[in-house]
Amino acid sequence: MMFEVRSADWEARVRSSFAAQKFMEHLGARLTHVAPGAVDIELDLRPEVTQQHGYFHAGATSSVTDSAAGYAALTLFADGFGVLTTEYKINLLNPARQNRIVARGRVVKPGRTLTIAKADVFGVSETGDVHISTGLFTLMSVEGIKD
Amino acid sequence: MMFEVRSADWEARVRSSFAAQKFMEHLGARLTHVAPGAVDIELDLRPEVTQQHGYFHAGATSSVTDSAAGYAALTLFADGFGVLTTEYKINLLNPARQNRIVARGRVVKPGRTLTIAKADVFGVSETGDVHISTGLFTLMSVEGIKD
Amino acid sequence: MMFEVRSADWEARVRSSFAAQKFMEHLGARLTHVAPGAVDIELDLRPEVTQQHGYFHAGATSSVTDSAAGYAALTLFADGFGVLTTEYKINLLNPARQNRIVARGRVVKPGRTLTIAKADVFGVSETGDVHISTGLFTLMSVEGIKD
Amino acid sequence: MMFEVRSADWEARVRSSFAAQKFMEHLGARLTHVAPGAVDIELDLRPEVTQQHGYFHAGATSSVTDSAAGYAALTLFADGFGVLTTEYKINLLNPARQNRIVARGRVVKPGRTLTIAKADVFGVSETGDVHISTGLFTLMSVEGIKD
Repeated sequence: MMFEVRSADWEARVRSSFAAQKFMEHLGARLTHVAPGAVDIELDLRPEVTQQHGYFHAGATSSVTDSAAGYAALTLFADGFGVLTTEYKINLLNPARQNRIVARGRVVKPGRTLTIAKADVFGVSETGDVHISTGLFTLMSVEGIKD
Repeated sequence: MMFEVRSADWEARVRSSFAAQKFMEHLGARLTHVAPGAVDIELDLRPEVTQQHGYFHAGATSSVTDSAAGYAALTLFADGFGVLTTEYKINLLNPARQNRIVARGRVVKPGRTLTIAKADVFGVSETGDVHISTGLFTLMSVEGIKD
Repeated sequence: MMFEVRSADWEARVRSSFAAQKFMEHLGARLTHVAPGAVDIELDLRPEVTQQHGYFHAGATSSVTDSAAGYAALTLFADGFGVLTTEYKINLLNPARQNRIVARGRVVKPGRTLTIAKADVFGVSETGDVHISTGLFTLMSVEGIKD
Repeated sequence: MMFEVRSADWEARVRSSFAAQKFMEHLGARLTHVAPGAVDIELDLRPEVTQQHGYFHAGATSSVTDSAAGYAALTLFADGFGVLTTEYKINLLNPARQNRIVARGRVVKPGRTLTIAKADVFGVSETGDVHISTGLFTLMSVEGIKD
């Protein structure tokens, strides 16, 4: 899908907001793709992001998924509007046993107040990607909050 | 609600599984309440768990929420069965501006294969608790996986 | 929870909107309780609302649940604002084998733009109520749409 | 995506189960496409399926969506297994103002116990289709229940 941006700074705003999220840094997450309505975030496996079996913790993968969906929405907001996640739902499809995951946030329907996005997580491996989770997100555009 | 446990080790299993989740340690999360069908996890505000405005990142609060719901279910599982989150949905109600949050996971309906739990997050402050989020979780009981 | 109403007509608006929903009439649904932030809708078992096993179809129970949640929100809206469901999630807990169900919509958090509600469905029988489903709903307040 | 069926009767089972759902008949829903992992159901606008503004009631559109997702899953089940919806989540994107809607259920990940499906609803009109809703569904395969 093609989306129209409403700010000349759409990309810079996403990058600076991401850089300001200390939690993303704490996880070791990297912003690897920013386009109108689309943001990818990647995360490498380290002990700090694992659950009891040594795989990615669903909380860690969901955290980067939430950020990917939120920033995908933010790319389409006008200047002066920040983004809040109001709700989301995630279905976990396969264990995240790979050494790297990528969360792909994609806007489904932009809106003045509410934007709906989906976000899928894939485990990246040499033998092909594995579909880790799929989710739906509602993002709210709020005037006057910093991105 | 009163629930019957099906394992003599129900509490020890939850505590040892939580201790084995390096991600919970990385967040600084603490297991503060374990009862049949009920688990609370607390998290203190530190820069490492914040978003761009200095509040708790929704990913951090949701991660402890997921663990609280999953361990609430695990308290009711028979020996030899581990827990997997299959899906969840969270509505964010208020910004998490407090210095501490508590996620309260509570089983709604136990089942042989699927257990449904709810989990609410509250921001703890001297002037009273604030309702940060509410969510619903589906947990699956899987034979042969370590807790 | 106690909620403040913002319209003198809060109850009449809900009743007239419900009466105007031909789909509720087609199902045979009845509005049985209206209070600030709380609405109950009941539905009797008839062949027209069943699935292939003769129980209530989840679509029929979910439809009255959606209306119960939406009208619970509408009780708290100011004059001139109508209600739209923006999203919801339902967990089905038990088959709806009873002769009557009641859907109880309750506001969790009212808001100027978004209101969060929960809605539970119970199957009513002489030996006690059975918990059929639990769900979370996001309702939007929209100026200028008729209730 | 291509899926393998596990029953010679995969299509007949879906068609006979749909025909047995009196609620689908009461709505006026029609099964218009059945393929492995994919089912479409259509619904025409009649007063009986409308809300207070004369558009499709979200309960009516969601009911056919639930059936489309459930039957998409059932196409992939082995003989002797029936389908139960365990939970679902729907985001409503646009009002359903058209004269006809089509709900397209598609399996995302088949499984022995749980199958994840998505289902999108489109309003059909001469000037192009409108995206009415998008949703995620968890379907359970249960031995010994009639389809």
